Amino acid sequence: MASTQEAAGNKSSEVSDEPTPAKQPRLDQPTASQESTAMQQHDFKKFRLVEILDNSQRAKYVALLGKFDTTDGISSSSSSSSQDGKNGEDSKSSSTSAILLLEKEAFPVEQLQQSQLGLSLFDHRQTVETVMHNDIWHKYRLPLESSFCLAKATLVHPATDRLAAKYRRRPCHLVVESPEDYRKRTEPALKSAGAKHSLAWVGNLLDGSAEADRLVFDDPDPAVGFVLHADLKWDGRRIDDLYCLAVCRVDGLHSLRQLGAQHLPLLENLMDKGRKALRDRYGVPLSQQRVFLHYQPSFYHLHAHFTHVSADWPGQQAERAHLVTEIINNIRLMPDYYQKATLTFPVKEGEPLYDAYKDQLDLL
Amino acid sequence: MASTQEAAGNKSSEVSDEPTPAKQPRLDQPTASQESTAMQQHDFKKFRLVEILDNSQRAKYVALLGKFDTTDGISSSSSSSSQDGKNGEDSKSSSTSAILLLEKEAFPVEQLQQSQLGLSLFDHRQTVETVMHNDIWHKYRLPLESSFCLAKATLVHPATDRLAAKYRRRPCHLVVESPEDYRKRTEPALKSAGAKHSLAWVGNLLDGSAEADRLVFDDPDPAVGFVLHADLKWDGRRIDDLYCLAVCRVDGLHSLRQLGAQHLPLLENLMDKGRKALRDRYGVPLSQQRVFLHYQPSFYHLHAHFTHVSADWPGQQAERAHLVTEIINNIRLMPDYYQKATLTFPVKEGEPLYDAYKDQLDLL
Repeated sequence: MASTQEAAGNKSSEVSDEPTPAKQPRLDQPTASQESTAMQQHDFKKFRLVEILDNSQRAKYVALLGKFDTTDGISSSSSSSSQDGKNGEDSKSSSTSAILLLEKEAFPVEQLQQSQLGLSLFDHRQTVETVMHNDIWHKYRLPLESSFCLAKATLVHPATDRLAAKYRRRPCHLVVESPEDYRKRTEPALKSAGAKHSLAWVGNLLDGSAEADRLVFDDPDPAVGFVLHADLKWDGRRIDDLYCLAVCRVDGLHSLRQLGAQHLPLLENLMDKGRKALRDRYGVPLSQQRVFLHYQPSFYHLHAHFTHVSADWPGQQAERAHLVTEIINNIRLMPDYYQKATLTFPVKEGEPLYDAYKDQLDLL
Repeated sequence: MASTQEAAGNKSSEVSDEPTPAKQPRLDQPTASQESTAMQQHDFKKFRLVEILDNSQRAKYVALLGKFDTTDGISSSSSSSSQDGKNGEDSKSSSTSAILLLEKEAFPVEQLQQSQLGLSLFDHRQTVETVMHNDIWHKYRLPLESSFCLAKATLVHPATDRLAAKYRRRPCHLVVESPEDYRKRTEPALKSAGAKHSLAWVGNLLDGSAEADRLVFDDPDPAVGFVLHADLKWDGRRIDDLYCLAVCRVDGLHSLRQLGAQHLPLLENLMDKGRKALRDRYGVPLSQQRVFLHYQPSFYHLHAHFTHVSADWPGQQAERAHLVTEIINNIRLMPDYYQKATLTFPVKEGEPLYDAYKDQLDLL
């Protein structure tokens, strides 16, 4: 649900932070369990790089497209019924293609604190590279000890071309949308694209038939009420990384563009009850909660994001996130602000809204 | 200048990406050169962790405070004249204290592309941990080969308590500032704090006596002109990470709060000439440039940030960055928008503005 719908911003957030206990075979020693369907083990020595789909300098993340050289050592064919395989040829060509999402692990601060490991962080058998010295400032490149050199890996295998396209980095542009643009370009593009999407999962959230275990708060009021869930992107442990999602109960509100004075009670209720619920559950002061809407949102049923102000999630940038305090202020200053405003939002090449605005963009 | 003044947001961006050729002694083998003042080498085996000052899950960054066990193997005392050492005692206590900023290196995509290394990424002597399997989705923890396990390190040594405080993570809060708050709290707090700061470096930028080598564009008009420099945070190589800073020539404009209809020519000139200069120099289309002001800014002389829309820099979040397209739109809708608006901004505990607003914040 939420995490699937919201994941477009950054795939690295899909890489799990919660490893579960499992067997630990060595990479170069295929074991009997690799042949079983219960717990297959891929032979990464046979993975050949075809394309780097994406990479992030900041998150230390790469998305790789590759192929397994042979079918030996590849996980059993029992799992080859790809959801994205549309036809026989697609399935066949994808049978050895794989997408490998890698993200370096963060420094394990708890471990450092407990053991006072200090410099057992480093591999003292390796060489250190001196970059520069200037007064009290010294720059080095230091080799890390192998236990600090793990990558969280998600392997999608077998993978189709459609899946590869999902993870491939595409150039992004900023669209500057006037009210007239909204009527003439955005609305028609969304209507024709939206026909393909189902929001059944939103209904399941609202009636409690899905993700009840992640529910934090439920305000049943049909006009101003909402359900607030811990987002699947968040592991629920580190409070500094808090990410929750509030889905409003009112139907027919698609985005920021429709908000006006009549929605002030809804927005104020979100800020009041939503933040207090997170304070009560997680101990986060109201003044440390960032509450915002996306424009454009990734699904067109009004919802708000709640994150810890210290959290460094994708989708919080100025061109996408609109603080609810700011929205309330704008509507108070000018009740039809969001019908009159020129709004900027990002689009990726190939998306329906990109095609709708392509002729307006400066593409060199 | 710019990078020093702007660095408050995230110290990890200070860690250089540009290693220069240097000797490569082994960490556990002190060499003769360690005793020389020309190229000292710290003995990281003698670094003992005292405190984890900061850490970022996303950037894989930690700031560590520690001490060197003895003075053996520590860089020569010729570099111990700390800029921050205020008195004898401070200098003495800091003589073995050190701050170590570590950031894992990103995956080297060029290297992967050239060599088709594929899975030489991984250390095949180490064990792989299986986290889960579900249909085509497989999660692992993979050991990385040692050449992909380097950390960019900045050692500040000797380090004072003041320097440690600079790198120590402090809780952050969102202030909601009404126009009245601005007059009664923000302005007085900034005036008393501002008396301590010099903006001489801004003058040096504007008259060309500093950083001329990083100048991208200069519009000499005293009313709407500006100088545009490549920011020191950016290495100038990866276009996706572009970061430039425009400093306006007009004097007396401190922040967003003062902008009105009379500044539309200045803002439009920035958007027009600044973006075109970056298109001409770096080939970045106008629609891929994010142009924004900070509120609160880190120094109170009007300046704008230009980044590539794909760049993942700190300080681009909705609570700090205001797109210039949005600012222009707001002033067109309501010429005194920024004098009437309620603006949200982040403050860190201990900052002058935090103290000015402490009683308004919800601190539990």
